Amino acid sequence: MRVELMQNLLGDNDTVAEENYQCFQANRVLAVDFMGSPGSGKTSILERVIASLDDLTVKVIEGDVATANDARRIEQAGAEAFQINTGGACHLNAMMIRQAVSTIDLADTDVLLIENVGNLVCPAAFKLGVHARIVVSSTPEGDDKPEKYPVAFRGCQGVILNKVDLLGYLDFDTDRFWELCAQLQPEAPHFQISCISGEGIPRLCEWLGKQLSTVTSA
Amino acid sequence: MRVELMQNLLGDNDTVAEENYQCFQANRVLAVDFMGSPGSGKTSILERVIASLDDLTVKVIEGDVATANDARRIEQAGAEAFQINTGGACHLNAMMIRQAVSTIDLADTDVLLIENVGNLVCPAAFKLGVHARIVVSSTPEGDDKPEKYPVAFRGCQGVILNKVDLLGYLDFDTDRFWELCAQLQPEAPHFQISCISGEGIPRLCEWLGKQLSTVTSA
Repeated sequence: MRVELMQNLLGDNDTVAEENYQCFQANRVLAVDFMGSPGSGKTSILERVIASLDDLTVKVIEGDVATANDARRIEQAGAEAFQINTGGACHLNAMMIRQAVSTIDLADTDVLLIENVGNLVCPAAFKLGVHARIVVSSTPEGDDKPEKYPVAFRGCQGVILNKVDLLGYLDFDTDRFWELCAQLQPEAPHFQISCISGEGIPRLCEWLGKQLSTVTSA
Repeated sequence: MRVELMQNLLGDNDTVAEENYQCFQANRVLAVDFMGSPGSGKTSILERVIASLDDLTVKVIEGDVATANDARRIEQAGAEAFQINTGGACHLNAMMIRQAVSTIDLADTDVLLIENVGNLVCPAAFKLGVHARIVVSSTPEGDDKPEKYPVAFRGCQGVILNKVDLLGYLDFDTDRFWELCAQLQPEAPHFQISCISGEGIPRLCEWLGKQLSTVTSA
């Protein structure tokens, strides 16, 4: 009975996720979800991306268990931010996104970035209706993370290895990390990023631009 | 209806957690749960603790979504390890602990260390029946983690700030971190640890020894 209930919950979620996707397509808005551990640097990456994509209208949905700290950082970086406080829940779901999107002027939006709750497990099970989900992993977490949290890495459309500026101080095997990623999801592009130096941000933004052009020319 | 089901699940869990606790008390075994984000360094801390407590019989329950990598590391460090693979589930619960404990010779155990699934959100909601839960947070995750993940920090009996060897390379305000911890849980002791240098391990082991003496003299 528990299993059935879970399947029903996921089924409902998938239906709403598909509606969200159709809504993004109809408005020619690129929607991208960022998921990763607490402190992997998701907000810092979004700040950098917002600053780089200054010729586009970027908006952000911020998912947090508590506080609106990240939404404040996003607004300081120059993008409109929409906060979802899950009140203890460990992931965003498609219904939360639908509700947030109903308050956003999509006609005046090019790119909608979503920062999921800091959690490398649960968000992976819930589709949101985005065009791409990017997993953010950071060097201090260790090079074994894809192997230990395979669902997240298997279901993504891109992987960011963040905090590469710390590589000199850590025992981290970059080749091993990317090999594990490629085994789980051979199609996903790999981005090495430092939010301190800005390394890798232009390539990520170029990729986002390409995804956007697919959406707007559809 | 969903809320009621969740309450029933948590109610069942609490009952089994209490049975686990009574079982640990009856066998005079100190049981301690370590929870924290992926890559916060839980396994490295356990390796160090096992090496330090070499006059005691320490055993470890390893909770992981996938792989038995951490259990192998624990056995190499010299302690018997019991692996729980949750198969996607985002936390350990009291029933999983009961099942693992049924395979452990508690009469030949002084300290049972439990490594929860790498997740700073979900494990906090599920009691296991341990004497103490310790939250592990690491410096690269940022000094704002207690504020953003308050449930974990509010419900613990101790906080470890790990990877203090990286402080020189990070923008991390140690005072702010401990202030936030103290606001949420004024009773919990604070441990600053480096698994590279071993800093802070003796104080943690001294504290574990005191907890054990309370259990054995009960």
